[in-house]
Amino acid sequence: MKTALLTVGTEILFGQIVNTNAAFLSQELNNLGYDVMYHYSVGDNPKRLEDLIHFAFHDCDMVITTGGLGPTQDDLTKEVIAKAMGDEIVQNEQCLKDLLGKYEEMGRHMSENNLKQANMPSKAIPLPNDQGTAPGFWLEKDGKIIIAMPGPPREMTNMFKKQVKPRLEKMQDSVIYYKILRAFDLGESKMETVLLPLINGQTDPTIATYAKEGECSLRIASKRATLEEAKEAVSHMEAKVLDIIGNFVYSCNDEELIDVVGKMLIEKNISVSCAESCTGGLFAGALTDIPGISSIFDRGIVTYSNRAKIEELGVKAETLDKFGAVSEETACEMSAGLQKKTGSDLCISVTGIAGPGGGTEEKPVGLVYIGIAYEGKVTAVKSQYRDVSRRWNRDYAVLNMLWQIYKRIK
Amino acid sequence: MKTALLTVGTEILFGQIVNTNAAFLSQELNNLGYDVMYHYSVGDNPKRLEDLIHFAFHDCDMVITTGGLGPTQDDLTKEVIAKAMGDEIVQNEQCLKDLLGKYEEMGRHMSENNLKQANMPSKAIPLPNDQGTAPGFWLEKDGKIIIAMPGPPREMTNMFKKQVKPRLEKMQDSVIYYKILRAFDLGESKMETVLLPLINGQTDPTIATYAKEGECSLRIASKRATLEEAKEAVSHMEAKVLDIIGNFVYSCNDEELIDVVGKMLIEKNISVSCAESCTGGLFAGALTDIPGISSIFDRGIVTYSNRAKIEELGVKAETLDKFGAVSEETACEMSAGLQKKTGSDLCISVTGIAGPGGGTEEKPVGLVYIGIAYEGKVTAVKSQYRDVSRRWNRDYAVLNMLWQIYKRIK
Repeated sequence: MKTALLTVGTEILFGQIVNTNAAFLSQELNNLGYDVMYHYSVGDNPKRLEDLIHFAFHDCDMVITTGGLGPTQDDLTKEVIAKAMGDEIVQNEQCLKDLLGKYEEMGRHMSENNLKQANMPSKAIPLPNDQGTAPGFWLEKDGKIIIAMPGPPREMTNMFKKQVKPRLEKMQDSVIYYKILRAFDLGESKMETVLLPLINGQTDPTIATYAKEGECSLRIASKRATLEEAKEAVSHMEAKVLDIIGNFVYSCNDEELIDVVGKMLIEKNISVSCAESCTGGLFAGALTDIPGISSIFDRGIVTYSNRAKIEELGVKAETLDKFGAVSEETACEMSAGLQKKTGSDLCISVTGIAGPGGGTEEKPVGLVYIGIAYEGKVTAVKSQYRDVSRRWNRDYAVLNMLWQIYKRIK
Repeated sequence: MKTALLTVGTEILFGQIVNTNAAFLSQELNNLGYDVMYHYSVGDNPKRLEDLIHFAFHDCDMVITTGGLGPTQDDLTKEVIAKAMGDEIVQNEQCLKDLLGKYEEMGRHMSENNLKQANMPSKAIPLPNDQGTAPGFWLEKDGKIIIAMPGPPREMTNMFKKQVKPRLEKMQDSVIYYKILRAFDLGESKMETVLLPLINGQTDPTIATYAKEGECSLRIASKRATLEEAKEAVSHMEAKVLDIIGNFVYSCNDEELIDVVGKMLIEKNISVSCAESCTGGLFAGALTDIPGISSIFDRGIVTYSNRAKIEELGVKAETLDKFGAVSEETACEMSAGLQKKTGSDLCISVTGIAGPGGGTEEKPVGLVYIGIAYEGKVTAVKSQYRDVSRRWNRDYAVLNMLWQIYKRIK
């Protein structure tokens, strides 16, 4: 079914916010087998909004709007949709009840203009909003569907998942099932090349690869008469894919590497400390973003200066002199010294040249050593990144550290 | 002048990338005094693209496209624009010369299909591309303007700044000059309230406030006959604004707080170390994102466990017992202990409850203490954030640490 996405709100047209709603909905709709033909954004202007709805429907059968459902004068999406669809606005009893309940629960006085949020096109099915006060709705007429959701991403994504997605799934005469595999240390073109025999001439399941900030994703999707058939087809293809690139895949459920590694460390109760030079605290920062990580994360030391490497980690001055701060030897001494100090099960270190300056012919920007002390062994891995930017080098080093831990423990 | 932005490319409709081009151009155009009425995104489909161009021009006088200018079969923006504007595609001699020069410079063989990039609508003014091979163009007909730029953000933003912006500035019969002030520790509604006497009834310069992840920005803009007049009007208003909220303003040139503080520390040659608990390395990570910071940043210690606070920073076990890890006393001992250990001029510490769990009635999630040891004095500041999320609490604590350093040194 051909679909248009319509974002309502001047803050988009002023460039104050980036339109992440459209990207989220596009991904979800494509995964469900709906074709997204257009994205539109328009301000809080009834004439232009109505023109766009008509324009969208000359080509599409479904329009999904976000924004403009709130209680202020500017919020006019409902009124315009009702007019465009030849419906009228009425007070919806269920919405009114929900709304009064929400305000009572929050212990807040509801001002008169908030009542507007209980209004709906008369033929609309209200979509409850768990995360805010403004409900959305689903309206069908003459084979055309319009779905209206609130603008704040948290409210919209929650409403989509709970209210809209199940309805969209039911509307399909076939079922789409898909899995997203995530891989590290394998470029997109390399992945495509090795999987070419599987990709070529494959109509169902389909295989699509995506690159994403140094990582790579693979989507295996099948469209069948039943969910069971689709799942089986995907699972069959997944096994074939894992036969070829299994060593690079860290998740078959579209998880982030940080979440996979964090969960693994907590589950296996492996205590961790880290010593960072070029990443300057980003690794510890990423790890401590996981709630509950305090059960296994002891400490992180950002040894930016040579003096700090010596004092904090017991790196030898000779090592720094002879091999330099960015070397396999320093990386090993950093992680070994940290383990001696903390007694953590796994101690990881990183030292590298983040750039933009500081590179030499022998040690160019993007050179990174990662050391790991674990189960009585200390090892270091050398990588040369392609130096996109200081930021990229540092972020990629963090991912690489997580990947090294993953490989070592797995 | 009413303007529509039109993004061409299926990767947007698949949700693989977020449309940052539209946000960038919207900001720039608004700052130049152009009204952005619509954003559209469409795939590489000639019929839909042409329909959208006609639809846009029924309401707007200018359409800016990004994407679809490359050498592949999919790239058809030029052809569709030529058709929609009643022009024809010809080979442009200057573009051909530039293109051949680029490939020679890169030492790469140019395949036949790359020649397509030298094609232009016959009446178009080519816009050179410093960052890639595909040129853009500017085409006017019957008072309507269409500007086509490549899709990759780096190429587009560069072309906009060098080629498009100067032309757009010239087209205005008046000049817009603006400054963006940035403030911390002052909510948007508070800022609006105290500035109301200046904002109300003010037609030029205009004052607009924006909220942005815990920070607040203020844009002062003036539209006058000459740049000199506009600058004077803005500068006059800026002085009035600073009289009222000067204590909260850290930049009058739209700089990030991290850049302002980093520059200040480097310029004043104040050596810094940090001890982090709830932010878990994010402060050190933010500071070390600044190239050249190694001249003043010695080390960071992420003391996540109580044991680490005692061992690394000399925090007393009694202090942790009596007042807790999240307390003024612990924050002070953390920064004092760090200074004793490192001898850095300024030692900053942070301890707080990031959530989602771990909060109590006495010490709720979002409670944060920041300690500073500087010039012989150790002090701590207590804040209670409104607890949007773990991520938000941690990021805001980093900003607050930067703000405390800024205030202390300024």
